[in-house]
Amino acid sequence: MYIPEPFKIEDDKTIHEFISENPFATVISTIDDRIEATHMPIDRFEDGNYYGHFALNNIHSGIREEQEVLIIFTGPHAYISPTMYASEFNVPTWNYSAVHCYGHIKFIDDETKIWNLFQELVERYEGKEGWKLPNEERFKNLTDSIRFFEFKPKRIEAKFKFNQNKPGEDIESVISGLRNVGNQEAADFMEQITGN
Amino acid sequence: MYIPEPFKIEDDKTIHEFISENPFATVISTIDDRIEATHMPIDRFEDGNYYGHFALNNIHSGIREEQEVLIIFTGPHAYISPTMYASEFNVPTWNYSAVHCYGHIKFIDDETKIWNLFQELVERYEGKEGWKLPNEERFKNLTDSIRFFEFKPKRIEAKFKFNQNKPGEDIESVISGLRNVGNQEAADFMEQITGN
Repeated sequence: MYIPEPFKIEDDKTIHEFISENPFATVISTIDDRIEATHMPIDRFEDGNYYGHFALNNIHSGIREEQEVLIIFTGPHAYISPTMYASEFNVPTWNYSAVHCYGHIKFIDDETKIWNLFQELVERYEGKEGWKLPNEERFKNLTDSIRFFEFKPKRIEAKFKFNQNKPGEDIESVISGLRNVGNQEAADFMEQITGN
Repeated sequence: MYIPEPFKIEDDKTIHEFISENPFATVISTIDDRIEATHMPIDRFEDGNYYGHFALNNIHSGIREEQEVLIIFTGPHAYISPTMYASEFNVPTWNYSAVHCYGHIKFIDDETKIWNLFQELVERYEGKEGWKLPNEERFKNLTDSIRFFEFKPKRIEAKFKFNQNKPGEDIESVISGLRNVGNQEAADFMEQITGN
């Protein structure tokens, strides 16, 4: 990914938090020289592994493990109007955040491990006291139609492009501008990463 | 993209509206056997062409025009808890919308054409009465650091996965559930596409 210096993020903790907050990812690979992309949640666990699952009928369920995949996580983004800046010489741009993880997936076929992962994932989304996956055959059978995998990135590229190359007064002004157009999510994110 | 029948979108008008409402796209290709992705707005014009531009320093600015690229547009998405359904036998899932366009990009080097495209794009985002690109050298010079391209999809795959395979009472119930967790965007989109 093209990342000018001011937008480069290298702090692991920042990257891991971003991935936890934005788990809905895109898995991309070539298959027979064609680019294929699958949209799905990918969850990073404390052990540093990432977990996800394809529908068994998805062509990605048959991907060779030797083949490198790119997993993209994206976060807040926003069109930035030149009128949002304090200074005068500006053009329209788009602010955004993205983390690109390159690596290999490894399919998991051990049914006990899959069932445990499922339960952990459910607890992550539903909370400790929330809905639980019933220990019933009809729920266990669901795993027959998906293929679980783990992934450990070999290389990560992270970019938060939020006017960090501009003077502080422009940054403050753009944050206000984003609030004015109702994009609180991008405004909050920009505030947080620029320390404004 | 893996698209079960209930989630397949084939109506051109629906797809074009989706792209207009969600122009912040991802351009993906291989470059020297490595998958590269660039995030950027891509705008579809009435002539059926799509326009975008790379930073000149982006490796994608040097892509061969013969090489197929995938351009992904994504829209509203949401985690769906089993507790959101009216019926009982459900598991967590993610609802989402994505349009995959395959085709070739063609670089535009004609400066007059680029300038006109810039002005049209600005008007699209800023409105007829809004901010205008000043006809000044310092703004014209900006085009030196980017590479404009046009794109016409050869093949489009569109998927709106919003529980269309479920009974009406589940769909209504999930829409309410999304409103309860504050994801109005996904709720509105789901309401619109399911006619609920």
